[in-house]
Amino acid sequence: MESIMIYVPAILAVVGLLFMAIKRSWVLKQDPGDGKMKEISEYIYEGALAFLKAEYKLLTFFVIGASIALAAITFLPGATTHLSIVIAFIFGAVFSALAGNMGMKIATKTNVRTTQAARTSLPQALKISFGGGTVMGLGVAGLAVLGLTAFFIFFFHFFMNGQWVEGIYDGETRTANELMTILLETLAGFSLGAESIALFARVGGGIYTKAADVGADLVGKVEAGIPEDDPRNPATIADNVGDNVGDVAGMGADLFGSYVATVLAAMVLGNYVIKDMGGIITGDKFGGIGPILLPMAIAGVGIIISIIGTMLVKIKSNDAKEAQVQGALNVGNWVSIALIAVACFFLVTWMLPATMKMKFYGEGYHEISSMRVFYATLVGLFVGAVISSVTEYYTGLGKKPILAIVQKSSTGAGTNIIAGLATGMVSTFPTVLLFASAIWASYAFAGFYGVALAASAMMATTAMQLAIDAFGPISDNAGGIAEMSELPKEVRQRTDILDSVGNTTAATGKGFAIASAALTSLALFAAYVTFTGIDGINIFKAPVLAMLFVGGMIPVVFSALAMNSVGKAAMDMVYEVRRQFREIPGIMEGTGKPEYAKCVDISTKAALREMMLPGILTIGFPIAIVLLGKLVYPENNQLIAEMLGGYMAGVTVSGVLWAVFQNNAGGAWDNAKKSFEAGVMINGEMTYKGSDAHKAAVTGDTVGDPFKDTSGPSMNILIKLTCLIGLVIAPILGSHDAKPVIDDLEGIEIVLDETTPAPEVKQSTKEIRIESVKDADGKVKATVTTVTDSAEAVEVFEGTEAEVAAKIEAYKKK
Amino acid sequence: MESIMIYVPAILAVVGLLFMAIKRSWVLKQDPGDGKMKEISEYIYEGALAFLKAEYKLLTFFVIGASIALAAITFLPGATTHLSIVIAFIFGAVFSALAGNMGMKIATKTNVRTTQAARTSLPQALKISFGGGTVMGLGVAGLAVLGLTAFFIFFFHFFMNGQWVEGIYDGETRTANELMTILLETLAGFSLGAESIALFARVGGGIYTKAADVGADLVGKVEAGIPEDDPRNPATIADNVGDNVGDVAGMGADLFGSYVATVLAAMVLGNYVIKDMGGIITGDKFGGIGPILLPMAIAGVGIIISIIGTMLVKIKSNDAKEAQVQGALNVGNWVSIALIAVACFFLVTWMLPATMKMKFYGEGYHEISSMRVFYATLVGLFVGAVISSVTEYYTGLGKKPILAIVQKSSTGAGTNIIAGLATGMVSTFPTVLLFASAIWASYAFAGFYGVALAASAMMATTAMQLAIDAFGPISDNAGGIAEMSELPKEVRQRTDILDSVGNTTAATGKGFAIASAALTSLALFAAYVTFTGIDGINIFKAPVLAMLFVGGMIPVVFSALAMNSVGKAAMDMVYEVRRQFREIPGIMEGTGKPEYAKCVDISTKAALREMMLPGILTIGFPIAIVLLGKLVYPENNQLIAEMLGGYMAGVTVSGVLWAVFQNNAGGAWDNAKKSFEAGVMINGEMTYKGSDAHKAAVTGDTVGDPFKDTSGPSMNILIKLTCLIGLVIAPILGSHDAKPVIDDLEGIEIVLDETTPAPEVKQSTKEIRIESVKDADGKVKATVTTVTDSAEAVEVFEGTEAEVAAKIEAYKKK
Repeated sequence: MESIMIYVPAILAVVGLLFMAIKRSWVLKQDPGDGKMKEISEYIYEGALAFLKAEYKLLTFFVIGASIALAAITFLPGATTHLSIVIAFIFGAVFSALAGNMGMKIATKTNVRTTQAARTSLPQALKISFGGGTVMGLGVAGLAVLGLTAFFIFFFHFFMNGQWVEGIYDGETRTANELMTILLETLAGFSLGAESIALFARVGGGIYTKAADVGADLVGKVEAGIPEDDPRNPATIADNVGDNVGDVAGMGADLFGSYVATVLAAMVLGNYVIKDMGGIITGDKFGGIGPILLPMAIAGVGIIISIIGTMLVKIKSNDAKEAQVQGALNVGNWVSIALIAVACFFLVTWMLPATMKMKFYGEGYHEISSMRVFYATLVGLFVGAVISSVTEYYTGLGKKPILAIVQKSSTGAGTNIIAGLATGMVSTFPTVLLFASAIWASYAFAGFYGVALAASAMMATTAMQLAIDAFGPISDNAGGIAEMSELPKEVRQRTDILDSVGNTTAATGKGFAIASAALTSLALFAAYVTFTGIDGINIFKAPVLAMLFVGGMIPVVFSALAMNSVGKAAMDMVYEVRRQFREIPGIMEGTGKPEYAKCVDISTKAALREMMLPGILTIGFPIAIVLLGKLVYPENNQLIAEMLGGYMAGVTVSGVLWAVFQNNAGGAWDNAKKSFEAGVMINGEMTYKGSDAHKAAVTGDTVGDPFKDTSGPSMNILIKLTCLIGLVIAPILGSHDAKPVIDDLEGIEIVLDETTPAPEVKQSTKEIRIESVKDADGKVKATVTTVTDSAEAVEVFEGTEAEVAAKIEAYKKK
Repeated sequence: MESIMIYVPAILAVVGLLFMAIKRSWVLKQDPGDGKMKEISEYIYEGALAFLKAEYKLLTFFVIGASIALAAITFLPGATTHLSIVIAFIFGAVFSALAGNMGMKIATKTNVRTTQAARTSLPQALKISFGGGTVMGLGVAGLAVLGLTAFFIFFFHFFMNGQWVEGIYDGETRTANELMTILLETLAGFSLGAESIALFARVGGGIYTKAADVGADLVGKVEAGIPEDDPRNPATIADNVGDNVGDVAGMGADLFGSYVATVLAAMVLGNYVIKDMGGIITGDKFGGIGPILLPMAIAGVGIIISIIGTMLVKIKSNDAKEAQVQGALNVGNWVSIALIAVACFFLVTWMLPATMKMKFYGEGYHEISSMRVFYATLVGLFVGAVISSVTEYYTGLGKKPILAIVQKSSTGAGTNIIAGLATGMVSTFPTVLLFASAIWASYAFAGFYGVALAASAMMATTAMQLAIDAFGPISDNAGGIAEMSELPKEVRQRTDILDSVGNTTAATGKGFAIASAALTSLALFAAYVTFTGIDGINIFKAPVLAMLFVGGMIPVVFSALAMNSVGKAAMDMVYEVRRQFREIPGIMEGTGKPEYAKCVDISTKAALREMMLPGILTIGFPIAIVLLGKLVYPENNQLIAEMLGGYMAGVTVSGVLWAVFQNNAGGAWDNAKKSFEAGVMINGEMTYKGSDAHKAAVTGDTVGDPFKDTSGPSMNILIKLTCLIGLVIAPILGSHDAKPVIDDLEGIEIVLDETTPAPEVKQSTKEIRIESVKDADGKVKATVTTVTDSAEAVEVFEGTEAEVAAKIEAYKKK
């Protein structure tokens, strides 16, 4: 019997998208200003579109290639994944690209309207810029939920006829649990598609934005001595496009990927909850799949709550300062979080059985009440809220770490940089303790299902988070347009207030993004283990430990590649800007027109070229490990699965550390530099812009730029994509043709009915050892070893319990 | 029956120490020069002694405190460790301190003699400086092997009456294997003592040397404009003392600790080889403990081979250049490595049974030939040799990475620093792949015993490595003395040749040290697992995964603390030097005498004060995890042991990465700066010292200094000490009172004699599940679960196999 609840999340997503459309048309109806403003805004819009177009072209090739690879995987022996994973993959990629497209377009349309509004009213400017952010947030969240849930509905009917009953797949009868596993393996394609786009958007976008920024600054500010955002600088449009490419589209694709992956992982673990309960939930009102529907329901409700939250973000006074604007955003954010907590309470208690049986590895089965699952969701919401404060402490203006960096700037760039590095490094302490406690607590409450639901609850605020996040670069752009159009000073002052708040939200947004990536990866990691049918990842096996090492190294090398890419791309930009200054007559006098499009083109090409190597590293290594494993252990899929799992754990742990380190060090340097704008007290003297200490701080910021905008945020994609690739490979490494790994398998059970006598244990010179293993599908493999003083013989029997027992009986008689 | 072989390693160590004594008296007989030279050398000597004295005072308190804590541990319920661990601990600390003392003294005596010899002859200068290094190397290696083997001999008689037979301990009859385990648990105290001293020497020394260096440079070079090593600078003596404190004593204590820990871990795993073979080796000529004696034998023979190696280091021509000097060192090094390979072949095939039965987790028992163990030792020697080349590639003058950093210096300090960071980060790629392959290969050859013996073989060259290593700072000091004493230019030229080679060997020495720390930690990690009796560390348990995260974070925070400490200590120095410049009349004219001792005192106090927090972090966290674990899981020691294991793995993986990253980035910046001395080609122009690009490179070097001399090398101690603390705690977490962890225990076997019918498997409404577990001591625990439709009952039975079978029988009848 099918429950109506399966359709509800999709409907809520559509509601969110409708609201987005209304908001969008409202924003677009606002006055876009005139003359130079409009012209510059057009350039930015076109530059952004040019990047998207070039990106899509490259993506098309990638998607085709990846689709063929995915299709090939489904034909491998032992693979249960359905060919339709390819369709899911393509849709995942297209939906993510669509969300990015929509977000970029609205952001580049909103900027000039914000500038125009700022000519008269700060409240109106906030309303418009935040409105643009809301469109972005709802677009991403709506498309993510709609895509995932629609595919689930479709697959649920396709694989299971919309019912939780056993059925035939691939010529074999399968339990409902098994069918759902196959369904979710296939649905993982959607998530993989989304995350692949995120790789392009986040890494490519990160390279783009910093190449343009550094290139524009190096030639414009340093060599030609013209101010930032000066229209005479040919790279200035590329710089403004970069804000949108990196901070809007990149962040959007990142959170789109996290949203989908988190919900998917929670569904996979929900399926295992049902399995642990015996394969069926008695009295379930949701067609027997309550625990699987729950994460989707939370995601859907989260969209509606985010709409409510965005409505609360407003200020009244035209003389408001940063604190009021930040306060307005906080109200929206906190109300959303609180409402989601309330919603989680009702959804969890309504949709889950009052008590569930869950298997805890190493501890056996526990009875888990639905209230405990609710507590797990609270853990997730807590992490999402606290991580922002932690990030703000280490990167916020006026906070102790920033003041310390400012002081250290007085003794030169060297000490400034050491202080910044140390700040980023120390910031891993509270962050990692927070994550570690969250993993432990949510697991203690409700196992890995609890971990996944903690992540789901946190991600339910995505639309709101993204609205707050996208508002930053929009305001930044609005300020840039005001500057370039030479508007009156008070306009720039108003946009500066928004921009300043936007800088803080950008930093805290990065904290949210890494928290979401970390929890998502853990949920995916848990889902991976259940897909492969292994019972754990034992790092006391040297090949697994070796892969943990290799995994730990990848984020470090990835970051270095990304940093070097920025350097190379920025150099391309420097040469082009120098060329234009040299060759275009009258450019410095403002009579000759710079070729903005050429700079946009250079940034675009460099970004897409330079993201190849990190991309190959990300995608290639997990595949290489599996191939290497198959070469060395052709018959031991379980060990290969553990090796890949060790690799995933290494990437996740190291990736989170490097993300936090780089994001926070970069943010700290940035704000240490900014501190000089208002003046800082060093050794009893007020010090301002232009001082030696300020110059040292500028050097620190140069180092921090790729940290916080390229390599740091890329870590999110690296760890999620690694875990997703693992998840997609997992079914091939499933127990189908694996040699039983006796030592650390889960349910080694000999089932005896009550009439069977207990095994007699004797010391004898001839003995028979039976080691039996029951795999995830209920099949039994028994290895019977007959040992005499002089010889040892081994026989392996496979089949259902009854079959194996009969075979052993026969063997023993012989 | 006792084998004479048990005494051989100790005898070889004594031979090494005798040779050292001869070499030492030869060095001391050399002409120490006269006048100012002698005076300055005296200052350095006294400064070094002052540091040692202050360090010993602090150490005394630490050793007393730690001894009490260790004694307390032995009284904990379930702990099998003998109280004499305290004596072993104290001796380990004293021996390590003694080695450091000896090394520092000879180094500070050799420097001036090298300067004096350099007045006339380069070959003689090399002979003396390398002679000093040899004394240091043999002193460290000799004392390490002597201390460990002497305690082993003593304990072997104390615990086992010098025989491999069962005996009574703590009122219970124990097998020889169990007695040996208790012996080795106690012997671990020696290793812990040694490594604790290394914490003080390496971390404290690292802070000392950089505080003095930075302080001397900032005021002397930058503010007062006087050259390096100028005797008017009050901090210059402290700076020269620092070279000895950090590079000589610190490195010596580091390798002393590695040497002892590696051999100990290999002995622990040797004991498990014997266990896997049934508890006795038939036909063993070494009193039944061949596999345990082997690592000691390799260590002992390594000392003699190192003596041969050091004898080969000589040059003939007075006009030799760097290449010849480096060549002479290489000959000694390569011959040592080759001879140790040969020695390993004979020792391994002679001392081990032709084939051994070893348990591979997840794969069951394998037959391992002794040749495979030999191959494992070759893996270790290979790593030791290759890691130097890798390090040299990333940090060597004239190599591609350095040239790239030099080029990037032309666009400012920011790009120089990004390039240096990226170089350090990328260098983790080949390094980690090398380590990962080594772990995997040596494990594939001979299990974790193979991993430990690979480490042992690598460490057998310690004396030679340390001789090469200590020669660097001695030559550096010799040059400083020449400068301060205003000797003729050709003297400085000769010492500069030695110094330049010394810089390369310092970098490669750091590579060797981190490789040794990594392999040592892995061996300790394996030993830890066997001590606790767990069968693996399953990171798919959330508490274990959480601790993996926490462990990964520790090296990052530790590094930040160390870097900040350098900053603070350097500031103290800056204020003192400024004060002296201000208050001592005639100091700048050379008529007033600087108060060198005050600066030495400041560096000493700052170093010891600032190393407290990192030290507490290192020692406190493992203990905190165990306490937290006991609080949450009072009855599940196995899970706590896994959590601690996860933490250890996190520290090791992350620590190795951060060590490689920091060492190589620091080394690269240093040599990028040095490149400007001879002039470099940037954008087609020769660029020299004093250019803007050079200034940018100097900034990079400022950042790199604490990286390569403080935080980077400290990682070695962090990871080894963490694993050693784990090892000492391990017995408390042993299986003695642990709740059985059914899910992932090793040998779940139902032993049936041939007359027992196979279990009949039926679907029935009432079923009995029996899960039985055999632990490391051969005891069986069976959990019998009776499930009916309405209820579930669980009974647990423990005892020998026969007892459990009887109990189950009785229970079923009931």
